[in-house]
Amino acid sequence: MPPDSTATEKRLLEAAFAEFAKHGLAGARVDRIGIEAAANKRLIYLHFTNKEQLFDTVVTHSIARMSEAVPFTPDDLPGYAGTLFDHLIVHPEHLRLAVWEQLERPVVRPQEQEAYRPKVSAIARAQSLSTKLDPVDILALILGLVTAWLSASPALRQLSKEDAFSPKRLARQRAAVVAAVRAILRSAVTA
Amino acid sequence: MPPDSTATEKRLLEAAFAEFAKHGLAGARVDRIGIEAAANKRLIYLHFTNKEQLFDTVVTHSIARMSEAVPFTPDDLPGYAGTLFDHLIVHPEHLRLAVWEQLERPVVRPQEQEAYRPKVSAIARAQSLSTKLDPVDILALILGLVTAWLSASPALRQLSKEDAFSPKRLARQRAAVVAAVRAILRSAVTA
Repeated sequence: MPPDSTATEKRLLEAAFAEFAKHGLAGARVDRIGIEAAANKRLIYLHFTNKEQLFDTVVTHSIARMSEAVPFTPDDLPGYAGTLFDHLIVHPEHLRLAVWEQLERPVVRPQEQEAYRPKVSAIARAQSLSTKLDPVDILALILGLVTAWLSASPALRQLSKEDAFSPKRLARQRAAVVAAVRAILRSAVTA
Repeated sequence: MPPDSTATEKRLLEAAFAEFAKHGLAGARVDRIGIEAAANKRLIYLHFTNKEQLFDTVVTHSIARMSEAVPFTPDDLPGYAGTLFDHLIVHPEHLRLAVWEQLERPVVRPQEQEAYRPKVSAIARAQSLSTKLDPVDILALILGLVTAWLSASPALRQLSKEDAFSPKRLARQRAAVVAAVRAILRSAVTA
């Protein structure tokens, strides 16, 4: 959040984050955001121009907050995957927001790209990848693995006959994710 | 589709599939489905009771159609992953529908579960997995890898400086997915 943000702006962004994560861009109601933030909804248009720009700001902040909460460790990508998994289990609204983004407004946001860029560069530096593998692919696959359980169909998750989100079940999926990232890197890295 | 489906029911399901894939459950308009299917919208309620049940029917059919189009090969899971990847690139509406389902109506549908069950059993039989790995985890991780590129943020995809959906770029991601599945199984399977 920029240092000149007013308290109202912060409250609006918090309320908008909750609203967009729950209902998506089309389903979100600017009125509800105003009520939740105890602010006149005209202030939303004043600060953020329109619903789409508010959404973009919320997405960008969400990514920044995740990056802060889960330090990127290019020398330990399996560990990063595990920590990000833990974070998303506790804060699934970040993933929901990213998924709505993909469905409803899949545009390239410059600030979002700047958040990814150092990660991709760090992977390229940290891993001596075989020439066939792009660090962008590595990061995309890791994110696919990390979000696999939250994205899986409830019908599939329930087949393991345990509560899909019990600590024990989550620990097993987490271990599988970490092991999978390790296996992919082992096979991709040239010694 | 059950053999007693009328031509109207088929048209309605086709139109509903396109509408739900594009706009999701909340965003879909029953009126538009009726117009697209050249059918009175009252027929929708007659055949499918309400919008939610129509959505569930469409989701179940989508999964059945994917299962038909992409034969499950438990003895060659990397090959399955590659074929499913190809299929989803050509028919991303199946993935969009599944993602809306997760966001808007994440319930366990019995028919959907019956589509997953033989796959999970076949993985358990085909792979001699180490005791730590659940075949449900394997399948969830494979699906996470297969959908990683389509689910990745455009901001990330664009960092590889090629059109994300050019044949060459897709071939590279596909190869990475297949290699990743192979690596995971190699590390998970007890010799």
